[in-house]
Amino acid sequence: MLRVRIIYLLVAAIIISPSFAIAADPLSSWNDTSTKAAIVRFVEAVTNPKGKDFVAPAKRIAVFDNDGTLWVEQPIYTQLTFIFDRVKELAPQHPEWKTTQPFKALLAGDMKTVGASGEKGIIEMGMTTHSGMTATEFEEMVRDWLASAKHPRFDRPYTECVYQPQLELLAYLRANGFKTFIVSGGGIEFMRPWTEDVYGIPPEQVVGSSIVAEFEIREGHPVLVRLPKINFVNDKAGKPIGIYQHIGRRPILAFGNADADMQMIQYTKAGDGLRLGLFLHHTDAEREYAYDRESHVGKLNKALDSADIEDWIIVDMKRDWKSVFPE
Amino acid sequence: MLRVRIIYLLVAAIIISPSFAIAADPLSSWNDTSTKAAIVRFVEAVTNPKGKDFVAPAKRIAVFDNDGTLWVEQPIYTQLTFIFDRVKELAPQHPEWKTTQPFKALLAGDMKTVGASGEKGIIEMGMTTHSGMTATEFEEMVRDWLASAKHPRFDRPYTECVYQPQLELLAYLRANGFKTFIVSGGGIEFMRPWTEDVYGIPPEQVVGSSIVAEFEIREGHPVLVRLPKINFVNDKAGKPIGIYQHIGRRPILAFGNADADMQMIQYTKAGDGLRLGLFLHHTDAEREYAYDRESHVGKLNKALDSADIEDWIIVDMKRDWKSVFPE
Repeated sequence: MLRVRIIYLLVAAIIISPSFAIAADPLSSWNDTSTKAAIVRFVEAVTNPKGKDFVAPAKRIAVFDNDGTLWVEQPIYTQLTFIFDRVKELAPQHPEWKTTQPFKALLAGDMKTVGASGEKGIIEMGMTTHSGMTATEFEEMVRDWLASAKHPRFDRPYTECVYQPQLELLAYLRANGFKTFIVSGGGIEFMRPWTEDVYGIPPEQVVGSSIVAEFEIREGHPVLVRLPKINFVNDKAGKPIGIYQHIGRRPILAFGNADADMQMIQYTKAGDGLRLGLFLHHTDAEREYAYDRESHVGKLNKALDSADIEDWIIVDMKRDWKSVFPE
Repeated sequence: MLRVRIIYLLVAAIIISPSFAIAADPLSSWNDTSTKAAIVRFVEAVTNPKGKDFVAPAKRIAVFDNDGTLWVEQPIYTQLTFIFDRVKELAPQHPEWKTTQPFKALLAGDMKTVGASGEKGIIEMGMTTHSGMTATEFEEMVRDWLASAKHPRFDRPYTECVYQPQLELLAYLRANGFKTFIVSGGGIEFMRPWTEDVYGIPPEQVVGSSIVAEFEIREGHPVLVRLPKINFVNDKAGKPIGIYQHIGRRPILAFGNADADMQMIQYTKAGDGLRLGLFLHHTDAEREYAYDRESHVGKLNKALDSADIEDWIIVDMKRDWKSVFPE
């Protein structure tokens, strides 16, 4: 009966409150620019059952890149910092690293040599720190690290270096019947332990890069063991493939921030009916960072040139966002 | 205001109706046996917020095998019939098949030779019929075929050769806050076009075997092209891996029907707290089929022997199901 009474009170409140229709702005951290207007117009169009652009709720799939779109990716990807920290922590068990590059350079704080080891060096350190343990053990490592690590400039946990306007946008989309997904080049299992708490996106709605795992019975107990072998790279042309494999239908909204998100957004926009493709342009060195065509992370170059012809929205952080981080 | 008025009437109806609590049995096609009682007991335990076995809604993940668990898999897997039909349809464009096995045998109706070609022959025909087209084209092929193909014995569309008690169980779980997934050895893209309509399971909650796909811009239009290369085999030890990759958390309920589902169910049961693992035992030659230890499809042998010690429930189709198919 309690629930019935609560519903009753709620209904009464709705009926007697004339201001109910004028709810608080769900996108209050967005400035009232053409960008915000375009987002709202799109959502209203696809949710209006009488309009020509109506999309059934089940098909309201929205995909978001993570690094640089939902949280900070400067000065380096957060997952890279995780890798470096793990290598340092594991070093006592690996005396051979003292004489092996790029481990030697990292342990000596020589980041120039680490950088020079390129993708190969990074993958080697990534494999060392991301495999060899069970799925459960890896999840705990990620949780433990995030609980103590802090962003070097903002001096707050990485999970608080997320963008407030995007949190509002995710919630606004879900309130309008959308299902929100992450489609990131980052490691899928590096994101899943925290995306539900931070973004309201459950693990099953996270698509990312992955390594191979194996099922094993250890002392009568079934475990999943992570192997040092790449399974899938969910980046660039891999993003629409990741969407096909995991989601199995084409999104109607895609939000990225780099040229590596172009294919995902092209694929989204190529579907029938109204679609929205957005890129976040980091233009705010004061509150966050300013980077685009020449950046070593989140390079945004071709997408800027193609935005007009492809009908993509370039979100200008400085102009379009009232605030950047949560309070 | 219309919505407000409807809610108001609904609330009024709830308040004045004393019989509201006594709803119709959501599992009415299940006989009142110990099996049904165990399912209901489990669901009540994990949904009771005051009980020691309570599981938060977000973690109520239930996984179901498809072939032989949700729909008929005899006399051969439905997808195999699809492959055979497609080969026959494509034959005019492939004169070379007249002299190439196993195509030659299939076109001549010599199923013994087809069978003798084994897994290699089947994969060859599968690749021929499942790749070379875009994702959208393949989806249409599946839809078209399902719209006309009929089961040889039941003489009804395959999508009506699904089990009524399982449809009820899926709906019952969802009504209790569960998220229901398919985890099948079958092709993921062979299932996705129809699982939402038939089972209420959307494409993004279907996990299955897959081939590799590639992103391509064709005449300015982005498409996904299916390649003749296996990406992932979601069977046996592959099932818990598929769950890890797609869902990213351990189910609390798993339902299969064959030894190939053992690993999925072991993995499910190995989690903390209350878990339920079930196997459907096909014991009903009259209404459906009777097969287990010696069957060429859906072999159920080791799981029968281990059920007691592993605390798995063996669902006896003949005993536990009041009806098998929807009206």
